[in-house]
Amino acid sequence: MIIVHHLENSRSQRILWLLEELRLDYEIKHYKRDPRTMRAPRALKKVHPLGKAPILQEDAVILAESGAIFEHFVQTEKRFGPPRDLHDARRYRLYMHYAEGSLMPPLFAMLVVNKLGLLGRPARKPIMKMLHEHFVYLDEDMADRPYFAGDQLTAADMMMSFPLEAARSRAGLDERYPNLLAWLRRCHERPAYQRALERGGDYAYAG
Amino acid sequence: MIIVHHLENSRSQRILWLLEELRLDYEIKHYKRDPRTMRAPRALKKVHPLGKAPILQEDAVILAESGAIFEHFVQTEKRFGPPRDLHDARRYRLYMHYAEGSLMPPLFAMLVVNKLGLLGRPARKPIMKMLHEHFVYLDEDMADRPYFAGDQLTAADMMMSFPLEAARSRAGLDERYPNLLAWLRRCHERPAYQRALERGGDYAYAG
Repeated sequence: MIIVHHLENSRSQRILWLLEELRLDYEIKHYKRDPRTMRAPRALKKVHPLGKAPILQEDAVILAESGAIFEHFVQTEKRFGPPRDLHDARRYRLYMHYAEGSLMPPLFAMLVVNKLGLLGRPARKPIMKMLHEHFVYLDEDMADRPYFAGDQLTAADMMMSFPLEAARSRAGLDERYPNLLAWLRRCHERPAYQRALERGGDYAYAG
Repeated sequence: MIIVHHLENSRSQRILWLLEELRLDYEIKHYKRDPRTMRAPRALKKVHPLGKAPILQEDAVILAESGAIFEHFVQTEKRFGPPRDLHDARRYRLYMHYAEGSLMPPLFAMLVVNKLGLLGRPARKPIMKMLHEHFVYLDEDMADRPYFAGDQLTAADMMMSFPLEAARSRAGLDERYPNLLAWLRRCHERPAYQRALERGGDYAYAG
């Protein structure tokens, strides 16, 4: 049995989406953020010492880290992996790592800086500039295809969903980047995405 | 011909290490950080629109994003990839993504917060706490093996080198975490690591 340890408004929403796309059976254990720190609650540490969502439990095996969980299922289910076309496969590999490697750090820094309130103000402009550069690059890169690695949805899109949804909700991803908004709509219209949203509960970033 | 577009004191140092371990021929194009912003110089944008190191050029093909570059060489050279042992392969996958997905965001946030000087002070403590939790977890996880995915060096170690070197140099990775320091020494003693250091030039984090 697959159990997803799912934290509200977090990266684990995309694991639910993946499992719905794969039509696998799974259970969700729901966790709420600590209302003071907004971090994952201590209960998650009992499942895995890192104590962060997503954590996936499959019988006795515990898997952490979104990218690693995606690769596990791409390998076992043989779906949503790298396309055969060499260019598309390269894009797949790029975006599988870019989501967390390049796009999340400025988004996370923005979260930290926003918590500082007025004190954080001097840092906000350079981070927004950095994010804008990412969005311009991504928007151009998505001008000629519906999904990040070509014509079909892959794990790379699902990996990219969380940072781009977070960016849409609170870090300047707006109408200036129409290809990215069209991609987001395309993802959100998928029945599997909607089923994942229903099962996951609170998710502030799908709007 | 392989060309590494290499930025001083950056993630691209680990690409040089990989290429030295693989004993591949390559050229380095050196880039200096902008002395004011400490970010990559504009010249890197001419190579790839993301404009960040590492960028790898192999004939007409341009690859960006450390994780994607590592996977490319693991696939083409069939070395330093996931071990055969199932547990070790799982660790390999975890750490390939954890390096940037979980460990770099608080390190990057610390960099941003440090630039704020006194203003950033309230944010420093929670970030250091977060990093300490990572180090405790990693140090325990490394108690019984020399490398992150078992007995042999893999791409996962090379991916982990940059965040842990940065942490050693400026984010509290010290004698409280002896297994991590032993791992760092083990990496730094490798002849390929030392050759990469000689060829790469300035690298503040290898000490």
